[in-house]
Amino acid sequence: MTEQASKKEKVVGFIGTGIMGASMAGHLLNGGCTVHVYNRTKSRADALMSKGAIWQDTPKAVAEQCEVIITMLGYPTDVEEVYFGAAGLIENAKANAVLIDMTTSSPSLAKRIALEAANKGLAALDAPVSGGDIGAKEARLSIMVGGEERFFQAILPLLTLMGKNIVHQGAAGAGQFTKMCNQIAIATNMIGVSEALAYAKKAGLSQEKVLKSIETGAAGSWSLSNLGPRIINGDFSPGFYVKHFMKDIKIAIESAEELELPLPGLALARSLYEQVIAIGEENSGTQALYKVLSVD
Amino acid sequence: MTEQASKKEKVVGFIGTGIMGASMAGHLLNGGCTVHVYNRTKSRADALMSKGAIWQDTPKAVAEQCEVIITMLGYPTDVEEVYFGAAGLIENAKANAVLIDMTTSSPSLAKRIALEAANKGLAALDAPVSGGDIGAKEARLSIMVGGEERFFQAILPLLTLMGKNIVHQGAAGAGQFTKMCNQIAIATNMIGVSEALAYAKKAGLSQEKVLKSIETGAAGSWSLSNLGPRIINGDFSPGFYVKHFMKDIKIAIESAEELELPLPGLALARSLYEQVIAIGEENSGTQALYKVLSVD
Repeated sequence: MTEQASKKEKVVGFIGTGIMGASMAGHLLNGGCTVHVYNRTKSRADALMSKGAIWQDTPKAVAEQCEVIITMLGYPTDVEEVYFGAAGLIENAKANAVLIDMTTSSPSLAKRIALEAANKGLAALDAPVSGGDIGAKEARLSIMVGGEERFFQAILPLLTLMGKNIVHQGAAGAGQFTKMCNQIAIATNMIGVSEALAYAKKAGLSQEKVLKSIETGAAGSWSLSNLGPRIINGDFSPGFYVKHFMKDIKIAIESAEELELPLPGLALARSLYEQVIAIGEENSGTQALYKVLSVD
Repeated sequence: MTEQASKKEKVVGFIGTGIMGASMAGHLLNGGCTVHVYNRTKSRADALMSKGAIWQDTPKAVAEQCEVIITMLGYPTDVEEVYFGAAGLIENAKANAVLIDMTTSSPSLAKRIALEAANKGLAALDAPVSGGDIGAKEARLSIMVGGEERFFQAILPLLTLMGKNIVHQGAAGAGQFTKMCNQIAIATNMIGVSEALAYAKKAGLSQEKVLKSIETGAAGSWSLSNLGPRIINGDFSPGFYVKHFMKDIKIAIESAEELELPLPGLALARSLYEQVIAIGEENSGTQALYKVLSVD
């Protein structure tokens, strides 16, 4: 990292301008960065270009222009392609460039990226986020960062344009490991929230009144207070898609298996979300878990 | 209920003066009630007697003195004995007396009490609480009430001496059903909290830092923020005993079976808490679940 690179007025590449990525790249533009963008579906970068972002036709073209490149993609396979493909970032990034993967992806892939980047004289960080589309829009993301401390310090000013709760969790992979902790806690709690409301209904109670009695105490959780009312109102529209959550659950299970750590709650969540997908709810929000636990 | 009985300055019986009950009965004394007490272990009522409570040697003796009788006991079998025993409340309560069971007990037992009470011209309510010893001490309990609306309205002034979030949930049993919703949500979430922290440790992360990243977002919960730090510090002392939680889990599972509602998360929680008890942790706090999910 050069002195110049630690300032906010830098040249940043942003690959992956979906709902989350578009908001995040927008904050970089607002923060004074020059932003080069690439996205598989070009039209999804239109709004950013109207705000001054510069379109590039490939990840390689982005890499050739930028000292910092952020990726915000879908699946680990997408990450692998953008980093390791022939036209990818590892092969084509400028000397001393910093690569930041903000996709929720696998810890072992994050470690591999860091290793291969280092072999090329590049810096790499894994920096997945939580906070969803609203957190991205309002620059209030929680950002969990893995990688060398000096790289983290160098890009912290950039991250502060996008998030509020930014924690360096440790070496390469630690950001992804932390995000998996987040998803593990959510997955199992969603079972409890769904079962509590399914039981309330079956017992003939008013689910609204039950929520009023239990949400402020030891049963309280973000999911109970935010997704509970949606379940009660029959609103299964996506805050966070079942299909994306399933991706995260699978990554977490694979990672736990690598660590030889049995996670029975997470395994149960996977099998229940498989049922959610089997009934055609993969494009619903994660609260659709209720549909397979509730019995009329 | 007479006019007199709806005022706070009434004659109340309190059976079961353990940690919770002693605090609750103390609030009734402070609120101007005359309080007759009985407890299996008399010494646990000493502090209340020094504040003016009147000792009675049996539940029957309490029943003969009082227009309202509150029970705060341990197990459903204790409730059965106090209500249905030969020297019990149903047999010996004064005409028009109101019986309030604040024990966490089974919904079907609450319905049976209400029915048998009605047959004798007595009123009965189930009114379990959440908020623990601190909530009891500070009169901030959440109180979930089942039974006839007119009985609820009549004793609401008494309940407000002990709690803040007081909700009439429906007919007899509805209070216990609601408490079971609370315990179901807690039980499954405790698995998620424990697995997230076990995974964090196994991945070599700092559990403190992970908590900082995840507790304010969608993974956030009362248990994560209140019991997570205890787990991290190796503090497994009881806020709520494993053995008491296991009692509640069993009641919830029996009740769900009666309703023909499968609750796989709760079933998993039972099997995991059985393991917690098997390793000798029944007198630890519920966060000891971590011990059977964490792997060194």
